[in-house]
Amino acid sequence: MSAASINKIGKSTVPRTAISTSDEHTITVRGEDLCRDLIGRIGFTEYFSLLVTGQRPSPGDVKVLDATLVAIADHGMVPSVQAARMTYAAAPDALQGAVAAGILGCGSVILGASETAGRFFKEIDEQAADGDLLGAASEAVKRWRAAGKTIPGYGHSLHKERDPRVAALFQVAKDAGTSLRFVQIAEAVEAAIPDIVGKDLKLNVSAAIPAVLLGTNFPLVGLRGVPILARAAGLIAHLCEEAVNPSGFALSFQATRELVYEGPAPRTGEPA
Amino acid sequence: MSAASINKIGKSTVPRTAISTSDEHTITVRGEDLCRDLIGRIGFTEYFSLLVTGQRPSPGDVKVLDATLVAIADHGMVPSVQAARMTYAAAPDALQGAVAAGILGCGSVILGASETAGRFFKEIDEQAADGDLLGAASEAVKRWRAAGKTIPGYGHSLHKERDPRVAALFQVAKDAGTSLRFVQIAEAVEAAIPDIVGKDLKLNVSAAIPAVLLGTNFPLVGLRGVPILARAAGLIAHLCEEAVNPSGFALSFQATRELVYEGPAPRTGEPA
Amino acid sequence: MSAASINKIGKSTVPRTAISTSDEHTITVRGEDLCRDLIGRIGFTEYFSLLVTGQRPSPGDVKVLDATLVAIADHGMVPSVQAARMTYAAAPDALQGAVAAGILGCGSVILGASETAGRFFKEIDEQAADGDLLGAASEAVKRWRAAGKTIPGYGHSLHKERDPRVAALFQVAKDAGTSLRFVQIAEAVEAAIPDIVGKDLKLNVSAAIPAVLLGTNFPLVGLRGVPILARAAGLIAHLCEEAVNPSGFALSFQATRELVYEGPAPRTGEPA
Amino acid sequence: MSAASINKIGKSTVPRTAISTSDEHTITVRGEDLCRDLIGRIGFTEYFSLLVTGQRPSPGDVKVLDATLVAIADHGMVPSVQAARMTYAAAPDALQGAVAAGILGCGSVILGASETAGRFFKEIDEQAADGDLLGAASEAVKRWRAAGKTIPGYGHSLHKERDPRVAALFQVAKDAGTSLRFVQIAEAVEAAIPDIVGKDLKLNVSAAIPAVLLGTNFPLVGLRGVPILARAAGLIAHLCEEAVNPSGFALSFQATRELVYEGPAPRTGEPA
Repeated sequence: MSAASINKIGKSTVPRTAISTSDEHTITVRGEDLCRDLIGRIGFTEYFSLLVTGQRPSPGDVKVLDATLVAIADHGMVPSVQAARMTYAAAPDALQGAVAAGILGCGSVILGASETAGRFFKEIDEQAADGDLLGAASEAVKRWRAAGKTIPGYGHSLHKERDPRVAALFQVAKDAGTSLRFVQIAEAVEAAIPDIVGKDLKLNVSAAIPAVLLGTNFPLVGLRGVPILARAAGLIAHLCEEAVNPSGFALSFQATRELVYEGPAPRTGEPA
Repeated sequence: MSAASINKIGKSTVPRTAISTSDEHTITVRGEDLCRDLIGRIGFTEYFSLLVTGQRPSPGDVKVLDATLVAIADHGMVPSVQAARMTYAAAPDALQGAVAAGILGCGSVILGASETAGRFFKEIDEQAADGDLLGAASEAVKRWRAAGKTIPGYGHSLHKERDPRVAALFQVAKDAGTSLRFVQIAEAVEAAIPDIVGKDLKLNVSAAIPAVLLGTNFPLVGLRGVPILARAAGLIAHLCEEAVNPSGFALSFQATRELVYEGPAPRTGEPA
Repeated sequence: MSAASINKIGKSTVPRTAISTSDEHTITVRGEDLCRDLIGRIGFTEYFSLLVTGQRPSPGDVKVLDATLVAIADHGMVPSVQAARMTYAAAPDALQGAVAAGILGCGSVILGASETAGRFFKEIDEQAADGDLLGAASEAVKRWRAAGKTIPGYGHSLHKERDPRVAALFQVAKDAGTSLRFVQIAEAVEAAIPDIVGKDLKLNVSAAIPAVLLGTNFPLVGLRGVPILARAAGLIAHLCEEAVNPSGFALSFQATRELVYEGPAPRTGEPA
Repeated sequence: MSAASINKIGKSTVPRTAISTSDEHTITVRGEDLCRDLIGRIGFTEYFSLLVTGQRPSPGDVKVLDATLVAIADHGMVPSVQAARMTYAAAPDALQGAVAAGILGCGSVILGASETAGRFFKEIDEQAADGDLLGAASEAVKRWRAAGKTIPGYGHSLHKERDPRVAALFQVAKDAGTSLRFVQIAEAVEAAIPDIVGKDLKLNVSAAIPAVLLGTNFPLVGLRGVPILARAAGLIAHLCEEAVNPSGFALSFQATRELVYEGPAPRTGEPA
């Protein structure tokens, strides 16, 4: 394909970035000298926030971001961890491939609800400018239901009560002194759900994450990245264990012990 | 494939993990109650170390691990970032896919040298039990060269002097009070290289990472995960920027402006 | 996580498949003995159709499927190929990772339109049961526009005329004698667009693929797999070339020649 | 990173390709006009060979390549299929991500042996220029064993006899009239193994693939791509089934039914 043709896929032909640049002596990230100002002087969580937002977060912002990352980094032998371990067992030379396979399971069903819940809460925030959070929450729940959409971040297969991580995250936000506006919105939605949906769906961790993070400097656009970064840490831990005490093929064996083949029986006789 | 057949790929048929477990009320990670002991009480970097090692790192260990993650999270519009941005531009609904594409570039050439360098330093560590680091380093460099292997973590295309991140990381290790044994080994290798290799290859960041981390509680088996986790943070930042100010297709356009087609000219005339 | 909890994510706890099974002597695929009935007796394209549909396609069905796979397997140094080559350059030990990185770019913007176009055509097909294709097409275009959706598979950055692959694919379908129902629907949409959209958007290859395939036994649910399989072939060819004549880092170099750093200038003076 | 720095990662700064080019009217692939010469006139397997090699394969070459692709496209609910299905269940919007996750399992342990076996056979081919295949095979087996390497493509967990796909592939090569040189080499290795290794390891499908393909025009460098392309077809079929009859979460549930948590019991009492 000629350059002229690819050109037209997008609008601009000049790539731009405000994140970082470097020359032979200096690596500059978000206006700071990496080696002089950052290495040894900033924690990884704070640095992640700086990379994403371009600004240093407050200590409270860092507390909340740390808490969300810790809350969802690991939840045991979940499907994405199983996928990563099976991939590692089959391709142990390429750790990056096994991590990638696990991250590919951070999709809409399992971990992607955080961003959707964040958009939902932002919608309520705008419409509750007058202060009636419960009214705005009820309207939003009705609107999403009418459009055939599930309410993102409510209900959990395991925790019929609120997921215990929710209270822990809300407490961190209170202690950190960051804005509780979106925590209140999230709780207003939880209060509105039973009458409208007919089920008592409790706030789960996918809603709690935007509820606390949107009260900090962390932007909506970055929400989906939080579970991905968190899970990368959990996946790496599982793969370090897999390298020493393998379970990948054992998981695969167990998974198919009751496998039912529903296709036609093999034909007998000669080939056609 | 029947379960009985898959069974035999590995040795054990029962999967095991020492990382975490959960029931309806409690999520237990490495023997700690996630919601009671960890969320809000432990930073993400410290939690990553706990997940990988099973033990709480010392404050100095955390300092060093933070510094390595910060040092390599971002280095501008490098190939893996370009790959991730192009992937995002083509498939913006799947952020996890774009992050995965970027992580797949954390391979042997670009970021995988950390683990190899760590193994190299461990080899020298064992053979220098008597204390002669320079002698053991020289022997190891000769041995690896004789086997046709490059010395991992030395030399850099951009930084003819030592990569500026190296000094920053070594200073962090000194300030943190963690063991400098592997920093000394790394410098012994640097001193041994010119006479044996005939080139003055300086320590780069891929060697500096194991040099400081192996002086903490962080294990060799986890070394390759450090650049992957760090880059996940940088990739997410670039993709948040891409979502707002796209450069993916512009990068692709620029990349092919001077593209040369070397294949045969199209045949003229009728089809065969 | 306990088994009991994961259980509840989905509804069934017993995995089932109708695709294949095996024992020590026989591998059965879709009711046929792989070694006796299939290897050497069926082409790969026909086998792909058998795997997906459970039934042997007609020779005409195979002709059309072959043509669609050939039409989109390669389009030069497009973004997904660049991403794959850069990934391979950075991680040459893991060919599977580079192919995966390229496939991750087969998303909604670039190649995913085939499935969406197929759904659009099916909608028109159902509503034109009385035979008025043009009327049903006009209504559908209006409906999708009103819902803020673009018409999938029309318009192309490079080919202002119809993409030349469209006529080639339509000719194959005619020659193969498969149903032209969806070709007619696709052309009815093309005829309806200018009055409604105000632009003369021509059928592109993403619309031509469902237009011809939905006239065969190939199912709507499989449409998105066709560009993925096709591109896997093209990606492997590019990576074989990359292994011998590397361009990955050259692409990356070119891509950033005009890169603009828009962030703040590095602060001068002492660290904060 | 400045362009000048990235520049130096590789040697050339100008990307080149001999595969394809295009302008507004014509897409040229390997010197042929895609729309005029290829679509409708060439099967997908033949096109794959043309893309990889730059030349039209003979009909016998196509027969053999088809047979290898058919032989390994699917082997039931193997680990990589499980990983893909779990990924799809978690992220159903991104089919490309689930296919990519499955392909990431085509690594050294499961499907990567084809290329290694091919290199092994080429080594024997060169050293048996005088015609003594068995002698050269014995020497090569001894050499690889002495270097601590396993003999790639021999032995199988399920098939203690030769994998039934091996005979089927060899028969195809005979019928197609392609060179049997590497089949003879593969059988010489099989004959040499018992005395040297002390076990009667039979040829498996990973060795049979290079044994037949190296007798055609297909190059060694492309061997690793064959299982990847083949598995892409099988993965797509499984994911089409998953979209209609999901098993992903059921597999994940089954996999952990006997999961053992080996970590410390949760501490009781107050947090530290």
